[in-house]
Amino acid sequence: MRKILVIGLGKFGRELIDSLSKTETETIAVDQDINLVNEIKDIVSYAAQLDSTDISSLREIGADAADIAIVTIGENFESCVLTVAALKEIGIKNIIVRAKNDREARILSIVGATQIIEVEKEVARRLARTLFAPSVKDYIALAEGYSILQWEVSDKFIGKSLANCRFRADYGVNVVGIRRNIPQDIGAEKTDSTFELVPDASYVFEKGDILLIVGREENLTQLTGIDLNQIRD
Amino acid sequence: MRKILVIGLGKFGRELIDSLSKTETETIAVDQDINLVNEIKDIVSYAAQLDSTDISSLREIGADAADIAIVTIGENFESCVLTVAALKEIGIKNIIVRAKNDREARILSIVGATQIIEVEKEVARRLARTLFAPSVKDYIALAEGYSILQWEVSDKFIGKSLANCRFRADYGVNVVGIRRNIPQDIGAEKTDSTFELVPDASYVFEKGDILLIVGREENLTQLTGIDLNQIRD
Repeated sequence: MRKILVIGLGKFGRELIDSLSKTETETIAVDQDINLVNEIKDIVSYAAQLDSTDISSLREIGADAADIAIVTIGENFESCVLTVAALKEIGIKNIIVRAKNDREARILSIVGATQIIEVEKEVARRLARTLFAPSVKDYIALAEGYSILQWEVSDKFIGKSLANCRFRADYGVNVVGIRRNIPQDIGAEKTDSTFELVPDASYVFEKGDILLIVGREENLTQLTGIDLNQIRD
Repeated sequence: MRKILVIGLGKFGRELIDSLSKTETETIAVDQDINLVNEIKDIVSYAAQLDSTDISSLREIGADAADIAIVTIGENFESCVLTVAALKEIGIKNIIVRAKNDREARILSIVGATQIIEVEKEVARRLARTLFAPSVKDYIALAEGYSILQWEVSDKFIGKSLANCRFRADYGVNVVGIRRNIPQDIGAEKTDSTFELVPDASYVFEKGDILLIVGREENLTQLTGIDLNQIRD
């Protein structure tokens, strides 16, 4: 089982521990504040109040056996830097650190962080994408030049069959599946959705259908009218 | 062009404006602090220093014409609530609000927020997923019971051809594409990745290959050994 050390029990650290507690991981949680430690002690394998910049304290609780450490000390940057250096010294290979900005990120990388997380930036980028391109429900960049999108079919295809839309022939994109909403009850507002992995060529599109499409980004842009460069992470 | 109003220019608001400035959107940015307004005024359509709880101030700058408002007032919850109520009163249909916790989220929904964003929770969940299941690089839930994964192929398939792996026959999942890393230079550390949309049946898997696979979640779990319920958003 993976052994994960979480240092800092602010909002982000607590949410992380909450999510980890639902998976099969061994989690050690530490903070300087005994109240924060007490709040989460029942959902982790081990919780301790300590100064994470102190190497001997870290060794005492077995922190050096952790596969991964996540440092989420938001308020005190000096303490964050010293903690990362201490974790490196006790031999932890994967040190993930929350940074507030690019300048902090650079410094933390120099002292030993192997992965930097800028929480606000990540969520802001994703939100900006959905604001700019609301028809793109989700998006994964696959490799240089290729992407997969969940895309709400545009009006010009509604009422046409999948075969007639000629997605592959005219746009060079591959329709991997179709998600459509089916009302659970006639007249009811609540809907359920179904997904068809290998959609039938005779399927006729309705408003609100979501296509899962894969292809070269230039082809996806041609089909959807959305410049993927503008919504890239 | 979509007209987007951003209220509150802390870290999250500024990152959002930064991302929006790269897309074709008309952005209005406001804050109580003139220094924060000055910092971003060159990358938005319009910036103003004002009290966002004041309906007449909002009307004066044309905020009532916005398609979407995003409220990211982190520190002062009372001001956040009053701002949401003011936006509702001037007739804005889409009001997206950052909340610090579920209790704030409930209150903000009651006063008129149409979408709530809990920044720390979102990123913590995604991070927990990658910690628990590092072979899953990315993941989209498609519809009830179906998902798409980017999955690093496990050791038992390395050296076998795609045809011999029998992903469809034995596991019921559909391999949509393969991403593999190719060294840019012999002996070089730097690698480039290629993506094949319709992989050839004779393709032989190498360590580090990432498969893009779609299927029923129970089948994906059987193939990857990862319980998708534990990494769900």
